[in-house]
Amino acid sequence: MATTVDLNADMGESFGPWTMGHDAAVLDIVTSANIACGFHAGDPNVMARTMRMALERGVGLGAHPGFADLQGFGRRRIKLSSEELGNLVAYQLGAAQAMARAAGGQLRHLKLHGAMSNMASEDIEMARICYAAAEKVQPGIVIMTLAGTAQEAAAEDLGLARAGEIFADRAYNDDATLVDRSLPGAVIHDAELAGPRIAEMVKEGAIITETGKRIPTRIDTICCHGDTPEAIEIARSVRDSLSRAGITLRPL
Amino acid sequence: MATTVDLNADMGESFGPWTMGHDAAVLDIVTSANIACGFHAGDPNVMARTMRMALERGVGLGAHPGFADLQGFGRRRIKLSSEELGNLVAYQLGAAQAMARAAGGQLRHLKLHGAMSNMASEDIEMARICYAAAEKVQPGIVIMTLAGTAQEAAAEDLGLARAGEIFADRAYNDDATLVDRSLPGAVIHDAELAGPRIAEMVKEGAIITETGKRIPTRIDTICCHGDTPEAIEIARSVRDSLSRAGITLRPL
Amino acid sequence: MATTVDLNADMGESFGPWTMGHDAAVLDIVTSANIACGFHAGDPNVMARTMRMALERGVGLGAHPGFADLQGFGRRRIKLSSEELGNLVAYQLGAAQAMARAAGGQLRHLKLHGAMSNMASEDIEMARICYAAAEKVQPGIVIMTLAGTAQEAAAEDLGLARAGEIFADRAYNDDATLVDRSLPGAVIHDAELAGPRIAEMVKEGAIITETGKRIPTRIDTICCHGDTPEAIEIARSVRDSLSRAGITLRPL
Amino acid sequence: MATTVDLNADMGESFGPWTMGHDAAVLDIVTSANIACGFHAGDPNVMARTMRMALERGVGLGAHPGFADLQGFGRRRIKLSSEELGNLVAYQLGAAQAMARAAGGQLRHLKLHGAMSNMASEDIEMARICYAAAEKVQPGIVIMTLAGTAQEAAAEDLGLARAGEIFADRAYNDDATLVDRSLPGAVIHDAELAGPRIAEMVKEGAIITETGKRIPTRIDTICCHGDTPEAIEIARSVRDSLSRAGITLRPL
Repeated sequence: MATTVDLNADMGESFGPWTMGHDAAVLDIVTSANIACGFHAGDPNVMARTMRMALERGVGLGAHPGFADLQGFGRRRIKLSSEELGNLVAYQLGAAQAMARAAGGQLRHLKLHGAMSNMASEDIEMARICYAAAEKVQPGIVIMTLAGTAQEAAAEDLGLARAGEIFADRAYNDDATLVDRSLPGAVIHDAELAGPRIAEMVKEGAIITETGKRIPTRIDTICCHGDTPEAIEIARSVRDSLSRAGITLRPL
Repeated sequence: MATTVDLNADMGESFGPWTMGHDAAVLDIVTSANIACGFHAGDPNVMARTMRMALERGVGLGAHPGFADLQGFGRRRIKLSSEELGNLVAYQLGAAQAMARAAGGQLRHLKLHGAMSNMASEDIEMARICYAAAEKVQPGIVIMTLAGTAQEAAAEDLGLARAGEIFADRAYNDDATLVDRSLPGAVIHDAELAGPRIAEMVKEGAIITETGKRIPTRIDTICCHGDTPEAIEIARSVRDSLSRAGITLRPL
Repeated sequence: MATTVDLNADMGESFGPWTMGHDAAVLDIVTSANIACGFHAGDPNVMARTMRMALERGVGLGAHPGFADLQGFGRRRIKLSSEELGNLVAYQLGAAQAMARAAGGQLRHLKLHGAMSNMASEDIEMARICYAAAEKVQPGIVIMTLAGTAQEAAAEDLGLARAGEIFADRAYNDDATLVDRSLPGAVIHDAELAGPRIAEMVKEGAIITETGKRIPTRIDTICCHGDTPEAIEIARSVRDSLSRAGITLRPL
Repeated sequence: MATTVDLNADMGESFGPWTMGHDAAVLDIVTSANIACGFHAGDPNVMARTMRMALERGVGLGAHPGFADLQGFGRRRIKLSSEELGNLVAYQLGAAQAMARAAGGQLRHLKLHGAMSNMASEDIEMARICYAAAEKVQPGIVIMTLAGTAQEAAAEDLGLARAGEIFADRAYNDDATLVDRSLPGAVIHDAELAGPRIAEMVKEGAIITETGKRIPTRIDTICCHGDTPEAIEIARSVRDSLSRAGITLRPL
């Protein structure tokens, strides 16, 4: 049974004059922040401000690289060559390392964003390229990998430090994939349910599917969202339920 | 009398499908490469390729950050707040560090590009912000500073490692400023003249002005260009003249 | 005495996943919309949506070009050559015309944004270049010009259709310039005051300065803001006061 | 038998400080120019210069819109919603119209670029969206459509003015598709062969495949390239062969 777990959320997704998310509120809940690196969101100023806020609260810093697509928020699939993909990840990770250092801290983890993450969860070769590039730039960096996907397999193949991740607000099928968003119940909106459900998964070290099936999985971190008041409620509920269950919340 | 000196040139200024410069040829001449960081020129793939080529030839790697202005090639002056400016430099330096690491090397120096360099050579406060940001990201990095400008003063104020730089192909006024480009003789086009002239400056440890005046200056590196066949001829002439004069060419 | 006047506001300043302003609310108040053209804010999708909303409410469409600087929201001054500046305005105006046509309408006016507007209000040559480019692309387009600035002089020199503009929420000095934002009273925050004050200016056909001086000026349009609830209150107050004073609100 | 035909080439693909292609040389050969619109290549200044050069030589102007992907030169496939795609085409077409007007001319045709063209040649719905958006912005604009592809079908479905296009330097399979680039003979490198071959196709009003089969096709325009000296030789050979065969070269 796990006695500690990490709570992560995407952050630093504002850009220039545009604000996104409620970073200050979310930073009071989570223990790790996945910080956009300026390609799908974020800019050097947003990165600096977000990292300072995170460090003040003892929240762990991670790079959250994505495709070079501000207008599409990194959610459009773009096919790159292996070389291009590795360079894209290395560049963004380096930029994030520098901003962390300038803010007086350092990066602990990397998590892929949006379409880059979706593609890497289906394509082990693509996941390998991204993670190998990250490992070359920062040996030992912890890779957040989605449970039961090619991300997990790639990180294990490469023998990397990794943190297995589940979602705070998504229902799982019996094969450990996510219930399709178009189906009822795919996204959990009720904070009262979300917290205890996650606490149970962490205690059991298993994904609990829609049908109640247990799929043993390494759960090192829980992915929360901070883009809506509802999401923040769910994150808070997860935090509270874990605490009540005697699970210690701790950055990676 | 100096017995060693460095020869530097801007490089990695291609972008996506567009090629600029003759990097392979220039890398056979210089000892340090100032590599564009993707904001005024360059992209992660160009950076990776250029750094690999430089490392294969034992050429020292440097970051060459500029304003975020691809279309204007970083030559348009843009007024930023101190915070924005520092973040801009830190971000680019970090990205370059990562690309260097991924290529199996590491950065040794930083040189500002275009309008950012011009503004920092006139404005000591601006130079200080840029250099302090760089030092925070990579303590001990060597800052290339234009002789007789606010860049030099800023780096000395901050107590940074620095390399004093003169131009291979520009005439100097008696106050150590560059002869205005609109005046005849401002730019030296004759490779036969350029090489011996620079060798003499390095031997004497002084800028030799248009009138023949000697201004004692620390000369650690000579800035060459590689954008035209003529510029490459001048760089080659400088290299040959320095060698004949018994000056060792060595990266910073 | 003017019997009709236009009320304008900047709009369509969202970008990709980021929202800015309260366009739907503001479109219920104003009669002309200045629509960002994708360089300092806006994108083709935001333009399409905003134009459709404006057309549904009978609000007049205008192009609102700015510098190519999303991160700085077009507020950083960038020095361009005359040719570059004219091309920049022409390009954005054309893009906006097409989006208007695709939405079933057409552009009536052009207003410069941010630093481009500030620079053109001080520099008649720069204003001339921008306006001449616009006139070439759409002969007869109405140019919104800030009262008492080089914008006004340039449009008159070129003999263009123009609309004189005053601000709904800014105090004026006795020489018709705006009271500096750093001074108390420079920005009017009280909707109760703002509306009647503007109604009086329109009735008198004059700017009323802080000291109560009247400066006769052509007032064709009032610039409102929509970025804060307070700004929307002021816009609403201006609209109501003008209506009560028997002034008809009508697009250019 | 056709007595006139158009010769087209992509152009205006330089960007900021970077040059691509040999536009001046190619403009002396072709009768229509497909001008990049600033999203995959080109910028407002390049567009202005290229259009002026084309108009001076009586070459017809066309918009050549592509995906928003400078680094990838519009060659990466990006999946957009119908709304986004239509807006993207409308925006670029409008910008190109304005630049043409500012240069004293007007657009006659539109041709899709790179991955956008490839995707539209396979997907009739996507082609329809692009072409419908163009028709809305400029009713009656001539759409260049690749012979035997979904582009052709879409333009016919919509009842648009269209120009059927074949390639000057590509071999065709017996089903009118292009021979895969990886196969020998797919690209024709010999100018001596290329010209007479195209003249024969135009005279016969048919694609002549690798095996000598004739596939009757409307041939209104021949696509030439101008990126290499060899490509320019082929374009010149096509022009000469057509002239010798009594075919008049004329813009759309």
